[in-house]
Amino acid sequence: MPKKVDHSARRTEIANATLDAIAERGLDDVRMVDIARATEATTGQLVHYFPDKDAMLLAALDEIMARLLARNPARASRGDTIGEIAEALPLDAASRRDWRIWLQFWGRAMHNPTLGPRHEDYYRQITATLAASLRQHVISTKANALADAIVATVDGIGVRATLEPNAWPPARQKQLLAQMLTPLFDAAGFGGTRPTKKGTI
Amino acid sequence: MPKKVDHSARRTEIANATLDAIAERGLDDVRMVDIARATEATTGQLVHYFPDKDAMLLAALDEIMARLLARNPARASRGDTIGEIAEALPLDAASRRDWRIWLQFWGRAMHNPTLGPRHEDYYRQITATLAASLRQHVISTKANALADAIVATVDGIGVRATLEPNAWPPARQKQLLAQMLTPLFDAAGFGGTRPTKKGTI
Repeated sequence: MPKKVDHSARRTEIANATLDAIAERGLDDVRMVDIARATEATTGQLVHYFPDKDAMLLAALDEIMARLLARNPARASRGDTIGEIAEALPLDAASRRDWRIWLQFWGRAMHNPTLGPRHEDYYRQITATLAASLRQHVISTKANALADAIVATVDGIGVRATLEPNAWPPARQKQLLAQMLTPLFDAAGFGGTRPTKKGTI
Repeated sequence: MPKKVDHSARRTEIANATLDAIAERGLDDVRMVDIARATEATTGQLVHYFPDKDAMLLAALDEIMARLLARNPARASRGDTIGEIAEALPLDAASRRDWRIWLQFWGRAMHNPTLGPRHEDYYRQITATLAASLRQHVISTKANALADAIVATVDGIGVRATLEPNAWPPARQKQLLAQMLTPLFDAAGFGGTRPTKKGTI
């Protein structure tokens, strides 16, 4: 009887090892043999999962996206919501790893007909999920624009902190995030409590 | 008598051709022979200016930085200031070219002991120049934090627009910029007129 293999779990395991390797060495210097060693696979098996470096990068990003989309950042209070959004910043080793993948993806996606549309697709999912979550607190017409602004804020701080980790410890990132989101939330009417329902003024 | 060559002008000319080539093809696919052809130089002469791809990238960024630091974004009114800051976004072909260089620089600087410190140095110059300009309008203690927030805002919008140029035409970028900066400027007390001088209340 052939050995039963959980292909999905195996793929996730290999994607995670790939993610480590890309974040640590940079995509240019990732060697199949290192990933093979880490996952006890042959390079032939790896090529089956990831025929090229773009496929590796996309598998790594799919892992990151799955975690990102599982989150629901809008909390009861504005402060808690900002705290939840902060979790998307490069605050610890695991999230710094994810950010290093994103930055490499951006540098590569611009010139690449496969990766470019995937970026648009990822960001559409991120902003749609975030906007849906924000509709608990702001009127629907403002939720999309607020989601775009939050994504741009997180990206702007995340880029800086990923490239200058020593100058941007978690406290400084969180402080800038709060400085930027608090007035945005004020302007969008997200004051920490649910908005007055239509007709109940 | 040896032919007199203006080395600085020549370097700028070659840096500009390099910038075009990196933005168009991506750094991985830039070929010395294309830059040589565009600048009527030999590849031997190019190697004299740029011994490797990192040197090319840094020369391109030095060109971008010179233009960026020559600007003084703080204008008399808040609206005009936001308009000036918008000029740093990827609004046209020339600025999209610059952004494509930045994104490639980021993807490479993370793993590179030469490029990493240069990023920190570039951003220190950008935020210091911006903060100095903002001190015309906001109190000194708020200028640095506001400069960090503006840089993060521009980076966050610029990344998105560079990667999704069709979804982010100039009008949409400017709208998001104004949405993000207006409440930030309100919070920092930059209301379009000079702040009341100390002791003249």
